Formats: sequence, structure tokens, C-alpha cells
Amino acid sequence: MTQKTDHSIHLALSEDRADVYFTRTQTILQKEGLDPVVTMEIFPSRDGILCGIKEVLGLLAAVLPEDAEVWTLDEGKPMSEDEIVLRITAPYNSFGLYETAILGILAHESGWATTAREVVEAAEGASIISFGARHVHPDVSARMECAAIVGGCVSGATTAGAKLAGKAPSGTIPHAMILIFGDTVKATEAFDKHMPPEFPRIALVDTFKDEAEESLRVAEAMGDRLWGVRLDTPPERGRVTPDLVKEVRARLDQAGFPNVKIFVSGGITPERIRQFIAEGAPVDGYGVGSHISGAKPIDFTGDLKVVAGKPLAKRVRIPGITHNARLKKVELSKLEV
Amino acid sequence: MTQKTDHSIHLALSEDRADVYFTRTQTILQKEGLDPVVTMEIFPSRDGILCGIKEVLGLLAAVLPEDAEVWTLDEGKPMSEDEIVLRITAPYNSFGLYETAILGILAHESGWATTAREVVEAAEGASIISFGARHVHPDVSARMECAAIVGGCVSGATTAGAKLAGKAPSGTIPHAMILIFGDTVKATEAFDKHMPPEFPRIALVDTFKDEAEESLRVAEAMGDRLWGVRLDTPPERGRVTPDLVKEVRARLDQAGFPNVKIFVSGGITPERIRQFIAEGAPVDGYGVGSHISGAKPIDFTGDLKVVAGKPLAKRVRIPGITHNARLKKVELSKLEV
Amino acid sequence: MTQKTDHSIHLALSEDRADVYFTRTQTILQKEGLDPVVTMEIFPSRDGILCGIKEVLGLLAAVLPEDAEVWTLDEGKPMSEDEIVLRITAPYNSFGLYETAILGILAHESGWATTAREVVEAAEGASIISFGARHVHPDVSARMECAAIVGGCVSGATTAGAKLAGKAPSGTIPHAMILIFGDTVKATEAFDKHMPPEFPRIALVDTFKDEAEESLRVAEAMGDRLWGVRLDTPPERGRVTPDLVKEVRARLDQAGFPNVKIFVSGGITPERIRQFIAEGAPVDGYGVGSHISGAKPIDFTGDLKVVAGKPLAKRVRIPGITHNARLKKVELSKLEV
Amino acid sequence: MTQKTDHSIHLALSEDRADVYFTRTQTILQKEGLDPVVTMEIFPSRDGILCGIKEVLGLLAAVLPEDAEVWTLDEGKPMSEDEIVLRITAPYNSFGLYETAILGILAHESGWATTAREVVEAAEGASIISFGARHVHPDVSARMECAAIVGGCVSGATTAGAKLAGKAPSGTIPHAMILIFGDTVKATEAFDKHMPPEFPRIALVDTFKDEAEESLRVAEAMGDRLWGVRLDTPPERGRVTPDLVKEVRARLDQAGFPNVKIFVSGGITPERIRQFIAEGAPVDGYGVGSHISGAKPIDFTGDLKVVAGKPLAKRVRIPGITHNARLKKVELSKLEV
Amino acid sequence: MTQKTDHSIHLALSEDRADVYFTRTQTILQKEGLDPVVTMEIFPSRDGILCGIKEVLGLLAAVLPEDAEVWTLDEGKPMSEDEIVLRITAPYNSFGLYETAILGILAHESGWATTAREVVEAAEGASIISFGARHVHPDVSARMECAAIVGGCVSGATTAGAKLAGKAPSGTIPHAMILIFGDTVKATEAFDKHMPPEFPRIALVDTFKDEAEESLRVAEAMGDRLWGVRLDTPPERGRVTPDLVKEVRARLDQAGFPNVKIFVSGGITPERIRQFIAEGAPVDGYGVGSHISGAKPIDFTGDLKVVAGKPLAKRVRIPGITHNARLKKVELSKLEV
Amino acid sequence: MTQKTDHSIHLALSEDRADVYFTRTQTILQKEGLDPVVTMEIFPSRDGILCGIKEVLGLLAAVLPEDAEVWTLDEGKPMSEDEIVLRITAPYNSFGLYETAILGILAHESGWATTAREVVEAAEGASIISFGARHVHPDVSARMECAAIVGGCVSGATTAGAKLAGKAPSGTIPHAMILIFGDTVKATEAFDKHMPPEFPRIALVDTFKDEAEESLRVAEAMGDRLWGVRLDTPPERGRVTPDLVKEVRARLDQAGFPNVKIFVSGGITPERIRQFIAEGAPVDGYGVGSHISGAKPIDFTGDLKVVAGKPLAKRVRIPGITHNARLKKVELSKLEV
Repeated sequence: MTQKTDHSIHLALSEDRADVYFTRTQTILQKEGLDPVVTMEIFPSRDGILCGIKEVLGLLAAVLPEDAEVWTLDEGKPMSEDEIVLRITAPYNSFGLYETAILGILAHESGWATTAREVVEAAEGASIISFGARHVHPDVSARMECAAIVGGCVSGATTAGAKLAGKAPSGTIPHAMILIFGDTVKATEAFDKHMPPEFPRIALVDTFKDEAEESLRVAEAMGDRLWGVRLDTPPERGRVTPDLVKEVRARLDQAGFPNVKIFVSGGITPERIRQFIAEGAPVDGYGVGSHISGAKPIDFTGDLKVVAGKPLAKRVRIPGITHNARLKKVELSKLEV
Repeated sequence: MTQKTDHSIHLALSEDRADVYFTRTQTILQKEGLDPVVTMEIFPSRDGILCGIKEVLGLLAAVLPEDAEVWTLDEGKPMSEDEIVLRITAPYNSFGLYETAILGILAHESGWATTAREVVEAAEGASIISFGARHVHPDVSARMECAAIVGGCVSGATTAGAKLAGKAPSGTIPHAMILIFGDTVKATEAFDKHMPPEFPRIALVDTFKDEAEESLRVAEAMGDRLWGVRLDTPPERGRVTPDLVKEVRARLDQAGFPNVKIFVSGGITPERIRQFIAEGAPVDGYGVGSHISGAKPIDFTGDLKVVAGKPLAKRVRIPGITHNARLKKVELSKLEV
Repeated sequence: MTQKTDHSIHLALSEDRADVYFTRTQTILQKEGLDPVVTMEIFPSRDGILCGIKEVLGLLAAVLPEDAEVWTLDEGKPMSEDEIVLRITAPYNSFGLYETAILGILAHESGWATTAREVVEAAEGASIISFGARHVHPDVSARMECAAIVGGCVSGATTAGAKLAGKAPSGTIPHAMILIFGDTVKATEAFDKHMPPEFPRIALVDTFKDEAEESLRVAEAMGDRLWGVRLDTPPERGRVTPDLVKEVRARLDQAGFPNVKIFVSGGITPERIRQFIAEGAPVDGYGVGSHISGAKPIDFTGDLKVVAGKPLAKRVRIPGITHNARLKKVELSKLEV
Repeated sequence: MTQKTDHSIHLALSEDRADVYFTRTQTILQKEGLDPVVTMEIFPSRDGILCGIKEVLGLLAAVLPEDAEVWTLDEGKPMSEDEIVLRITAPYNSFGLYETAILGILAHESGWATTAREVVEAAEGASIISFGARHVHPDVSARMECAAIVGGCVSGATTAGAKLAGKAPSGTIPHAMILIFGDTVKATEAFDKHMPPEFPRIALVDTFKDEAEESLRVAEAMGDRLWGVRLDTPPERGRVTPDLVKEVRARLDQAGFPNVKIFVSGGITPERIRQFIAEGAPVDGYGVGSHISGAKPIDFTGDLKVVAGKPLAKRVRIPGITHNARLKKVELSKLEV
Repeated sequence: MTQKTDHSIHLALSEDRADVYFTRTQTILQKEGLDPVVTMEIFPSRDGILCGIKEVLGLLAAVLPEDAEVWTLDEGKPMSEDEIVLRITAPYNSFGLYETAILGILAHESGWATTAREVVEAAEGASIISFGARHVHPDVSARMECAAIVGGCVSGATTAGAKLAGKAPSGTIPHAMILIFGDTVKATEAFDKHMPPEFPRIALVDTFKDEAEESLRVAEAMGDRLWGVRLDTPPERGRVTPDLVKEVRARLDQAGFPNVKIFVSGGITPERIRQFIAEGAPVDGYGVGSHISGAKPIDFTGDLKVVAGKPLAKRVRIPGITHNARLKKVELSKLEV
Repeated sequence: MTQKTDHSIHLALSEDRADVYFTRTQTILQKEGLDPVVTMEIFPSRDGILCGIKEVLGLLAAVLPEDAEVWTLDEGKPMSEDEIVLRITAPYNSFGLYETAILGILAHESGWATTAREVVEAAEGASIISFGARHVHPDVSARMECAAIVGGCVSGATTAGAKLAGKAPSGTIPHAMILIFGDTVKATEAFDKHMPPEFPRIALVDTFKDEAEESLRVAEAMGDRLWGVRLDTPPERGRVTPDLVKEVRARLDQAGFPNVKIFVSGGITPERIRQFIAEGAPVDGYGVGSHISGAKPIDFTGDLKVVAGKPLAKRVRIPGITHNARLKKVELSKLEV
């Protein structure tokens, strides 16, 4: 377990991360001498991919007594609206304080994983890389990239995010470097000269010239060493279109570079991916930014359903345990914390 | 500055939080002996409230050389689509690596602050409390609440978030506590017995009974000590409606409790707040959850506009510095890091 | 035949219920010595359920000469837009005056029956009771309820309406009675004490408390004597929802009252019934008010198609008799008047 | 008071016109010895024109004790959604049974009057005649026409309806009569020959020929004795259009008949009237059928707000009397019954 | 080849019909001594029916050298968006000037033919005649009618247009002639008296009287000599409707004229034709005016794809010849010019 | 008058350009000895700019007798739906045959002029050139361009069209010429070398390279001799956008070419022009193609309103002359034919 995660659990276990009414509740219950065993059930507000449960179990393993009982679905599994995905039976005071953290972890990470899955499914096999670290706070960028990978992305852009998911990070050449070199070909050659051979050479081809022209210039200069080009046309030039991909592919093929791959980025969404596929544009991979990183979290709710052995619930809930045959019992003692 | 912030800057300055192509660029530029002084300009993709700039300046103060020049807008100011809100002139290698972190901080926090502002403006003076910590990862929940307060919320639900913004946290009584006590009146009386007198007594009145009935029960039991009631009717019972607020107000007034305030929560949005106002429902404050905490980040872009004294830019940008009379020069040496 | 019907036919046969131009026409034709045998055909302006034809035949039996010929569809049969549903061949002066009454009876009653049928079909077997007498003039409320029963309702709310259709009326306990008793349980027990045992005990459970709480209170008090509960949540509390039905069902079952039935009323429409079914809410019956009672009448038109043996028609009609194999010849002399 | 009204009140006072649960309530209250003085307030579910209140007061005068108190708005006044239009304070058992009839009278008649008012206002001074008796049951056709006249129509088509409102009925010549005469001119001349001179001669001109041609034929034949023509073009010939009216007007004027008026009927709605006015078609009057007669009733609700001197109400209502300065106290003893 | 076509080609070959930049280009290339053999490919901007290609080949035959190579699709064939429909390989200066004329001929004529085809397909076998010469400039009215016939119309209204397509023109009797005769029957009889027997007698029946009445008058007068009636009801009388056609058909049949055909004109579109068919109206043929004659031209583009043997193209095109197996090589020398 | 116009009138006067029923009518009327003086009135089906009237008067001058009377509006004037724009009083046989040609000239040319006017008004002073000759048949391309200039365009692309309107044609450099030269700069320099100095040098800058890059290359090469650049970005590269114009303007200004103008073409419509203006893009002129050339013709109708001195008209028209104070009497004898 990385240092980051340690720190993260440390934060989650800090009472100042809890909604303050849970802190106050704990004080009151203790003063009243109340600590009943309760069952809490947790469920999402819409369909999606469950993510963050491993992190939550780590948290629970750190706080629950040995005889507590926890049932859950596995990380990365699909879940339905209102389906119970986590059930905890334990003395209330052992975990009540962490409801805020537990729900927050699941909400944010499941939101990212679910949207990533939609993108991946739209791409019908083309690879998807999460490029959106720059659109979220660095405190959670690694969590976001890891969740995107749980959702099906092949990698992320940051070292921390990729590492959290056991992957190598993915990156080409930024516009800034090309601007400093003053020429796309020179910048790509510098990359080729100084980087280890196992890093794929992917040239970014929209900085100074038309993409088709620049792609041919880089391919002529790099020859077999060029692994691919990345098209990132900005909205002011019409974004990357299916026709542009087809034209670049044809021009590369005509010039003798059929092995150079084409990657596409810039405002990519499932709708646009489906359009590339429908129009037969031969895209090898997509970089997806804020569509995944800005995914709306999926609200989760936690409800007490049994208190001191008695089915009980607030209005609108049905008291007692909700049956869900998909849940598996967790052996807390075997979890690494 | 709190321990949290220290840790956060530590993370932001870690190269494994950077998009890996910036890491690689730094290696290449160093090997090529390139480190030109450049000007980078940063701007948002839509109108909003700028937030996170204090955190970004802290980061820059830690890395930029003394003769670097930084211009910016103040935290909490309105900003327009494509308006330059931050301009940095410094050797590229001193800060190029942190572009990911800088953009991410601004994106996420400005997204939250902007949406909070929309809610606050819709409320025309009624107070707004951010209740959405449970819908984001605990690693950023305090940042989210602080940004919501920058946007105009009067407080947040967690101790960490409120503290970051110099406020006291706000909270009533959770459903879980009422379920454990088995009765709303008992739970409220226990709160009253054990909590310091300066905490306002606000009863949550939708757990077991109809809100109007429960409000009167609590008011009868608590008398003058009751500060307010919180209506949180779930969607399955029709959410809190303007008519419900008017009815509870009238029944409390008829029963001799004109001073008991009414707070409303549950799926609150600017549209619904405007409806409460339009129908004349006397709401004293709103708790707003995922509408603010799940706000879409505002994408920011950073562009090199001058390299080694020469105006330069990629296609679609106009080379050279962009005039913005609203920017103020920052004295980096005077910033606390 | 009831006193009411007698009076009604008396009214329909009164010349002051006729459009005055028919009265004048009769005078003119008599002065001109004209009274040709004509054929009139009557058809609806849209698809629906034919209702009122029995009443119309009663009227015709009272006025037509013995050798008149009448063809029609049976009461309650489906009819298509522009389909001939009634054909009369007789001297014009024997029935021309009653065109207004004949069309009006068919229009109003077919409108009610048609909408009732739509509701009944949406309910897929759950019983529908017409509750809308309070939304129409008492002069036609019994006619409306009878037409609703022709359309498929199992009963109506008034004694007169139900009687006209050969049914017993249906009713629970009004809000007014519960308010006078001051408590739902007391009111239900009074009903139980004083009403004959064959009247089903159905408690109205939304007056003072939340429906789920009140349902359990009544069930505990009444035990096996409780036949059902009626949920009638007003719009200000979100109407009855599928989730509310499911919750009340579950709480009743958990408390040992699986035989207590659940009836739903309040703004019921086919759309909402379909939603209850789609979401699996176990509703035993619905009370439907203004959706049926306020049904738009179906305009009918009567056209002369043969005059003195000669096919003739106004513009837009095809002169002569329109073939319709579904019509049956009526033996007027055998009708009870 | 006419024989009809007598009969109608007789019906309304019959207990078999009441929702059966009111009948049962009365039995139970009597057996329990309960008959508190209560205040009931009645209000509509949407804005409109109040109609039927005179009939309701007649009913109340027949049943309430002398010391009962009744407040109301006048017949024909505008009323707002949820505005109290009738307040009754009396022993419950003296009037509770008639709630069904009271609400039904107000609902149906206010629905007709409100829609009639919309039509009248759209017509900006052109006269509107209610032609829809043929689209409602003859038991209420007179009530409908009277309500339409309360709403602003100048007359109705039936003798009974017009008489109830103190008007003479209005009518031209039906298609049937023209078909029997075989020619529009002959039919119009027969009308002229046999009808009293005070009945206006209005020819219906769409039976056999194009309206413009027929209008000229009738005008040539009738000369100064022709008061007007009625255009009633069926949908299959495109309904009456503004252009048709303008053409007929121009042709009549060119042929020397500038005093012949033009009346329009057939599917008339406020929208179509506004179109005639917008396009400058010189229509002298409109006959309106099912748009008024098929108006949706306006649901009314009656709520107990005070029981035995104590403010009381079901959930969602505010207990106690609702202030409405527009209400006037009724002297029941001075009402004619 | 007609005189018209001669003149038309003469115009198309005139340099003052060319976009002036082509004229200037020719001057420049000649002064620079440049005249490379090039390949130009021409394609449409949307799917449609190719029309005008015969005219274009006539033009090319007049200007291309013997060794030029031309590939194309046949006149009247369906073509797809972006499909190459014409490929020319020849010295640029031999044909570059005529790009404007070539594209214009194809654009305008394919637009007409394509829309005509849509109308013809909608009619499912009923005959369509192009009536729209009056809505286009007489300089192209014959071209428009010929293109409409290529698209599937059976004929056109003008002698020149029909002749160009090898057909006889089609026409009935104009309103003007009926107005001069003052009566439809008289005008039709005059037509019958003076026109050769092979011209079908088709009466226009909407001038003075209702169409159904006039159809019967003409049929009675003309007997077996009447071939058909044309319904052309103007918008002010509701256009021809399916019900009108059915009524006229029924009245003609009842009167013993089952062989008289019914033609419909006036604002005919594919949507309206589909409605006639859907409602079972027995229409024998339609006259279609501005829907075909005002069809939007289909933009065509011509691109150089090979210059002096080398694949070359502007941005967005793929250099070199585009494969299209449907193209056929044209033997220019065998074309009649 | 040009040879073209002579030929055009010759065509219009040819009887084989007439709808054949007019030809037949003439034969019949002559055989019947009928040739009444009639008044025909002609009006458009929608608002617009009248165009073609000069050409029509030329035609009438060639055929009408001296005592004929003609009233009309001037070429280029606005006209309203259904407004009489041409009134002819003359013996029917002198002009009846030409109704098809007269209506067709007005329809087609007014359609073009009206749409051109909409474009010109949207441009708020920027110049509009008609570029659409390539999208219409060469037989009418000059008429189209002339009508576009009547509507407000400053010029057209063809010599014939511009000449007809008394203008010089307008053109830059086609893609084909740039492809043959293989480079935009070389092609522009060749134009500069060989063309008379009065032709403005306008470089087309989207063929091989990005527009901003190419604009600077051409400006550097041509210096003061460059009058402007034309941006014609194809749809596959996102069309010309306001941002592109602003960027090219800024880069030209920064490089010292503030006098080089910017012209925009490619799919230009009033909507897009309004967007350029709204976003502040400094466009000096637009080339507009198929939006104008493919304008829908405006249908015109001609009606006989007086026959042999007697007001007469078909159904739906008002017989006799329609007053229109805007019409002016034409002195036919003074027209040049």
C-alpha cells in the first residue's frame, strides 16, 4: 500500500472529515450509554459501476470489531439503482462517524468508473486513455485515474494515477515543448533522441501546421521509429473529424507509412466516438479528458435498517434487511489495511 | 496553514501528480540545455467564479525564482470565458511540470464556487449551507466546502471544510440518531441535554411522522429552546414543497411558535429555490448537497504565448501577451507558503 | 324503469329541449304539408365505446310509428370514427325534433364510457370505481356513473348511479367524518360498530398522519375486521406513489396483515396506473374521479341520407345508405318504454 | 322558479345522489350522537368564472337552520385557484349529505361559464351563441346553456336553456330542412313565409353549393328580407376561413347587399376567432358548439376548517377560517327557494 | 439535336458564362506555358438522381482532344453523396474553363430529377405530370421538365419540355378560358368541339361551383366523351382533400360515370400524396408544380486529383483517383455533338 | 440589349414555352371568335423583392396592342404577399399565351433577389458577392447573378451575369490553379505577374496549409501588392469560424499587414454572417454561393378579374380590380424592346 493511500485513510478516519452531526451524535450516544448493534445498508441512486469499495473495506478493517459482519459486491462490478452494494452489521459507534467518508469515496469513484465504462463501450475495442488529471484537484487526480482504469481505460496520464492501478502512465509531447523547439519535427526528434526506446514515439501534429501536412513531415523525418500521431485539433479549427482521420490515414498510407497509428483527443465523448465508428474513421485510440474526470458523482445513501436486532427504518424505507443474492461476505481479518 | 494544506502542496509538487509528458519534457529540455523564459497564460472555458488561486500562488511561491513575474485576479472574483486569470513569466523548467496541478486546482474549485454562487443568488438572502461532503471523496471534501463558502455559502457540514474557510461547521441531527432513539422528540431532547448551549437546536422532522405533526410535537416538547426544524422529505413522499413549508409555518404560528425557523434540504437546486420564493414559502435556510458538490469542474487551459522574448503561439491563438486590465501583479516574496 | 328515467325521457321529449330550429322546421313542414319518409344516419367523430343507445331507443319507441325501421349497435360496443351506429327510417316529423336529445345522450354517455374503458384497460385487472359524481351536475351524475360502469368500472359512489347500472354503491369514510371524530382509528371503529357487516371496512389513512404510520395504527386496532386501506395523499404531499404503496404493503405484511387490501385514489389517470404497474406496486383497486367524470363528450352527427326514397345528402356526404354489417335491426314494439 | 328547477333541487336533495359514504357518515354520527357545528370552505382548483352558486344557495336555503351562516361570491364573478368562494357554518348533519351535489353543481356550471367567457373575450364584441346542446345530455343541456350565458353568450339554441337565463333562443334553418326542400332558396323562402316577422331570416348556405354562390342566390331571392347568412363549411371542405368570409362579404357588397350579416359556425374556438380578427374577416357573430358544451368541469373541494369551535384541518390545510375580503354574507331567509 | 440545345451548348461554351477566375487562370497558365494533363473528379453533395450528364458529355465532346479519357454514370442513375459521377483526364486548358457550366448543368438538373423521383415513388403507380414551368425562368423551363421526366414524371406542361424528353405535353383547360366562357360546361364543350379527338377531355371543376356539383354537371353534359375531371381546390377552400376525392368518385359512380378519371393538383407534395393513399382516395394522377420545379439544386464539386501524372489534392481530399466500379468509360468520338 | 436577352425574349415568345393548355385555349377562342378585353392581375405568394419586371415589360411591349394598359411596381421594390404587382388590360389573345413565361420570369428572379436581399441585410455593410453560378444551369446563370445584384450584391462571378447588371465580374484564384502551380505563393505571384494592375490581388489560402500560416506566407511574399486573402475552409476542417478570422487578422496585423483585407466564403448564410458580426470577426466581404443561387422561386399567380368590362373571378377571388396605390402606369411605347 502506497504512502498516498495511508495518508488518505488517515484523512478518512479523521473526525474532522465527518459531517459534524455524526461527531455530535457520537458524543450524545456515549453520554447516554447507547451503542446498539445496527445494520446499515448502502445503495446508489442510479445504475453504474461500483468503485471505491476496496478503499472502503480498508477503512472498515481499521475500525470495526472482529465480530462485525460486512457484505458487499466486488470492485468494478455493475450495480443497479437502489441495489444494496454494502451491508455493515456492527455497533453503531464503531463506524457511524465514517458514513460521510464511506459514501464520498463510493460516490466520486463510482461516478468516474461508470462514465469511463460508457466511453470504453462506445469505442468497441479501440483503447481509451484517461487524460483528465488536469481538470480535477491534484488531491484526487490519482483516485480519478485509478477509477477510470477500473472502468476500462487502458491507462492514465499521471504516474501516481497509473501506479495506483498497477499501470505505466501514458503521454506524448505537450504543445509547450513543441513551442519551445519551434517546430514539431525538431521536438519529436529530441524526444526520440533522449527517451528510452520502450516509450512509444507519438507526435502531436496540430501545433503549427495543418495536421495532414505535419503528419507527413514527421513521418518522413522519423521513418520506422514513429509509432503514431496524435490529432488534437482545437474547436476553433473544427475539432478532429472522421474525415480528417480518414485523410491522414490515406496520406500516410500513400506515403508508405501504413504502420503509423492515429490517436485522437480533444473534447472526446461517447457520441463523438460512435460517430467516428459510424463513418469508418480508423482511429487506434482516444485520449479522453473532462468527459470522464468531470463525471457527476453517483449519490449513495446509507440507511439503518435494523437497530438492536429489531427491523426499523425511517418513512419510505422498508424496515429490516434487503435481500440481495449478489452480495458476498467479507472476511475483514484477511484484508490488508 | 493546516497540516492538510501542507500535505496538499506536497502532493501538488510531486512529479508523479504531473501528466507524464511534462516529466519527460523536463528531462529532454535539460538534456538539450534549453530553459527559456516563457510567458504562460491561463484562462477558463466558461464564465464563473475564480477559486483556488490562493492555493496556486502558494505552489508558485515555492518553486518560482525571485525574478519571476505573476499576474492574477483575486480569489472569489467573477471571470469570463477565455479571460486570462493567471499569467506567469519565468524559466519554463521552474514551473512547467506543475501545469497539471495548477489547472486541476483551478478547475475543480472554480467549478464548485461557481455553482455555489448560482445557488446563493437564487436564494435572495436566505442562507445556504453546503451539505455535499458525503458525495465527494474525503481527500477533497474540505476543498469542496471551502470553495462553496468562497462562492457564498455560509458554512459547510464538516469540521475540516469549515475550518479551511474560517467558519464553524453546521449540522443538525442525523436520521441514524433518531432511529437509535426511536423517536424524534427523544433524540432532540438528548441533543439539547448534552450539547453546549451555543449549538442551535434544529430538529429533523421527517423520520417517523408527517412533518407538520412532528414539528408541533418537537416544538411542544422543547419550547423556547427549539431554534428551528429541518424539513428533508424524501422524493418518495414528494420532496419538500412550498405548500408544506407554508403549512408548517402556519401550524407553528397558530401553536405559538413564531420564532422557530424552517430549514429545507433534499435535492435543492436553484430552480427549486426560485419556486419556493415565487410561491411565497417562508424558508429561513437551505442545505444544498450534490448540486454544489457534484458541480462540473470548469476546464482551464494554459498556453505559452511568449518564448525567449518572442511572441509565439500554436495555431488558433494570437501570439504574445493578451491585455487584461483586471489583472494585478503578485509579490511572490510576500506570500506565505 | 325508475322514476328518474321517466322524468328524463319526459325532458328529452319536451320540445323546449330541442334546438329551436327543429321546432321551427316542424311548424314550416306541417304548414307546407311536407312529411317525407327519410333515413337519418348517426355517427361519432372519434373511436370509442357506444353508450346511451338504450336510452335513445326508449325515446324512439315512444315516438316512432310502427312501420319505422331502426338499426343500431348494442350498448357498450366499440365503435369507430365515422361509423354509422344508428340508422332511422321514418317520417321526418315523427322524430326530427328529437335530434338534439338523441345526439346529446349519445355524446355525453359515450364520452364517459370511452374514457372509463381506457382506465379499466390500463389497470389490467385491478378494479376501478367511479368517484367523480362530485365533479358533475347532480342532474347527470347517475347517468355518468352508469356510463362509467358500461365502460367497465365495477361500481360508482352514489346510490342512484350504482342502482341505474344494477350495482351496489361503493364508499369508505370521508375526511369530514375523521375530522369530526378527531382521529382515524376512532372514526374507523365507529364505522365498524354501526355499519352492517357486509359493508367492507376500508380506512382512509391520510388525514392526520403519514399513511404508513396510520395504516399500521388502524390495522392494529381493527385486526381481522379491516378489509383495506385507502391511500389518497394530496398533491401537496406528492400524491400516492408506487413507492408508497410498496412501503405500506411491506409494513402491513411485516406487521402480520397480509390480507389488508390497498386502494388508491387522488388524480388517478391511465398514465399513472401504468406507472404503478410498471413499478410493481401491489394496488388492489383505484378510485377514479374527474378523469372519467370530466371526459370530453364525443360529438355525434346525424345526416339525412335518403329523402322520400331518393338518395340525397349535403356536400361532403355520399348520398344514400352507408353499409355497416355490424348494425342490427331493432324491434321497437318489443322495447320497454 | 320553473318546474325544471324544482325537480332539479328535488334530485339534489335526494340522498341517493350523495356519495354513499356521506349517507353512511350521517347514520354513524347520529348513532354516536354527534352533530357539531362546523365550518366548511369550498374552493376551485383553477381560475375561472363562478357559476351555479344561485342554485346552491337555493339548496342550502332548503336545508340549513336559521342560525347557519353562509358567505359567498356572486354568480358570474371571477374566482382564483384555491380562493374560498363559499363558506358554510352550521351543524354538520344539516348539510354534510349535500356536499356531492354542491360541488357538482359548481364544478360543471363554472366549467361551462369559464370557457364561454374565454370565447366571448376572444371575440372582442362579436356576439357568441351557444350551439352545443346537442353535445350534452338533455338532462343538463339547459343548465349548460344558462351557464354559457352567465359566461357572456348572448343566447343559446334551446328554448329551455334560453328561458332559464331569461333570453329568447336563437336558431336558423337546419340542413335537414334544406335537404327536404331540396334547395336552399326554397327552404329559406318557406321559413320566411311561415315564421313570425320578428324572427330574423338567416340562411344556411353550405348545403348544396359553394357558399359564395349560394349566398348570392339567397340574397337575390330574398332581397331586403334576408337578415344574414350562416357559413358552416365542414372540415372536409376546409372549414370556414377568414378568406371565405372576406370573399362572401365582398361579393354580397358588390351585388348590393351590404346589410346582410355573416355568421360563422363549425368547430369554432378562441384560437380560430382570434385568427378571423387578425386577418380582418368581418364576422358578425359566431355559433359555438362543443368547445363550450364540452368544457372540462372545474373541480371544487370542500374542507372542514373548524369543528365545534376549534380550528382543525387535515394535513396540507391550514386549520381555521381562511380570510377572503371578497365574500359577502348571505341572508338565507331572504332567498327564494 | 434541337435548335435549343445548340444554343444552350453555345452558351455553355462561351467564356462569359465561366466564373471569371477560370478565364484568368487560363490566361496565366498560357503565359506561363503550363498545360498539364490533369484528372478532375466530380461528385454531388447529397444522394440523388444524376441528370444532365448527357448535356455535359455533349459539351465535353466539343472541346476535349481525342486522347482525353472520360468516365461517368448514365443519365437517370441513382448516385450517393460524395460518389464520383464524372472523371475527366485531359490537358487542363482544354476544359478547365467549363467547370462552372458542367457543375451548373448537373446541379440544377439533378436537383429537379431527384425531387421528381421522390414524388413518383410516393405516388405508388399513379401518374405524375410536371406542372411547374410557370414557376421557373422560361430559359430553363424545358430543361426542368425534361429533368422531371428523367426522374419519372410521365409528361410536362410545355411543348418544348415534353419534346426535349420525347413526350407529348399534357394540359387540360385553364381557369382563364372558363372565365371567358363564363361556365365550366360551356368551356369544356368548346374544347371538345374544336380539339382533335386524341386529346383527352379533362374538365377543370373548381372555378365557379363546388367541385362535386360541377363534376356531375360536366359529366351529364359530356357523357362518354369526358375522360376525367381535375380537382384544383385552392387553399382558401381547403385544398383537395382525400374526402373530396372519395365523395366525387362516389357521386360520379352513383350517377353512372365510373370511367371518368380524377386528377388532383394544387400544392401537391409527397407527404400529401402519401396521405391520399393512406386514406384510400382513388386518385388517377397528380399535377405537381413548384414542389418539383422549385427543387433545391444539388451542389456538385470538381476536384483535381492528379496533376501531370502525380496524385495531388487540396487539404481534406485524398490525392489520386477514387475508385468507383460503377463508372463506365465514354467513347467521346461516338457521341453526337 | 445583349444578344442573350434577344434570344431569351425569342424563347419566351415561342409558343412551345407556354403551358400547352394556353396554346389550345388560343385555338379554341379563335375558332369561337372570342377575344374579349380582359384584366389580369398578378401577385406573389409571399413577401419579397420584385425582380424580372423589366424583362416582362420587354415581352409585353413586343406583343400588346397600343391601347393596352399596364400597371406595375418598379424592379427591385419590396412587395407583399398577395399584393398586385402587375395589372394588364388588353385583348386576351394578345397575351394569354405568355402567362407561363411571365410568371416564370418573376418567380425565379424574385426568388433570387429576395434571398440576396436577406443576405445583404444580414451583412450590415460588408460587401456580398454572388458566387453561385456553378450551382445553376448556364442558361440562367447570368439571370441569377443579375437578380442577386438587384437584391443588393455588389457583383457576381461570371462575366455574363455581371455585364447584364452593368458590373465587372469578381474572382480570385481557383484551387485548380494553385494545385497546378503546387504552391499558393507561386500561384499568387503568377497572378500578380500576368494580370492587369487594376485586378485586386486576393489570395486563396486554404489549399495546402493552415490558413493562418498561408496568409502570412503570401503576405510576406507579395508585400503591399496583396489586396486581400480569401478564407474558404471546407466543412471537413470546420468551415471558416469567427475565431479563425480574428486570428488571421491579428497575425497579419502583428506581421505588419494591417491593410490586407479578409474575405470569407464556403456555405455562407445569413445566420452565419450574423454570428461573425456578433462575435466581432472583422470580415471585409463574403462570397455567397448556393444560399442565393438555390433560393426557392416565389410562386406568382395571374387571375382574370374583369372580362369584357364585367367584374368576374373564380371562387375565392373577389371580382373586379384590386386597388393598389403603389402601382404605376407603364408607357409601353416608350419601352425599349
